[in-house]
Amino acid sequence: MSGMNDTSAPETIASFCPRFHHAVELIGGRWTGAIVRALLSGITRFSEITQAVPGLSDRMLSERLKDLEAEGVVERRVLPETPVRIEYRLTEKGQALAGAVDAISDWANDWVEPFPAGASSNQR
Amino acid sequence: MSGMNDTSAPETIASFCPRFHHAVELIGGRWTGAIVRALLSGITRFSEITQAVPGLSDRMLSERLKDLEAEGVVERRVLPETPVRIEYRLTEKGQALAGAVDAISDWANDWVEPFPAGASSNQR
Repeated sequence: MSGMNDTSAPETIASFCPRFHHAVELIGGRWTGAIVRALLSGITRFSEITQAVPGLSDRMLSERLKDLEAEGVVERRVLPETPVRIEYRLTEKGQALAGAVDAISDWANDWVEPFPAGASSNQR
Repeated sequence: MSGMNDTSAPETIASFCPRFHHAVELIGGRWTGAIVRALLSGITRFSEITQAVPGLSDRMLSERLKDLEAEGVVERRVLPETPVRIEYRLTEKGQALAGAVDAISDWANDWVEPFPAGASSNQR
């Protein structure tokens, strides 16, 4: 799993995995977790996502959706209606994040203090 | 779960949770997942963590450990030896992240392409 070549410290080699590192920083990227969670809930439209995630700007959502498309997590569909309708859906790879989202939700429910109503949870 | 007061859109309220948002951005913060994973593997010393996580600088590790201490995820212990020895250990709250780390690892194993040996996985 590791690209390191130091065979003198096997226990430290075992502790780093580039694929885990990539995955955790992908899902934890600014707003990414909240966007994936909104899509898992069945939301498909840009404006619905910004409504669902307080503090998320159009510009930031647009950037994140492009990142998630590039990662193969989100698929953008243009439906030939009048006016044209655009949907964002999780791919199979994106749907597979449900287990990780659930595990993080469980931890949050057990260990993160509830935020006061209306307070921002943005700590970065 | 939500601090929103808009009762006109229950399905969008259900899709955002400030505690989840805080948790996912905490665990996905720059280097944080890799550091927590290293500590879960039993590593306790500063220099062991930097050895275990390629590309992680002393300065960045120091910042992240302070953040994780402030979150109650990591505990810093000063052992009165000569020379003084400092250990970093996951608290109960930190140990409880094992489930989320496992779920993200599972997803990474299933869906993230292996990185070539020696390549950097830093995409941000």
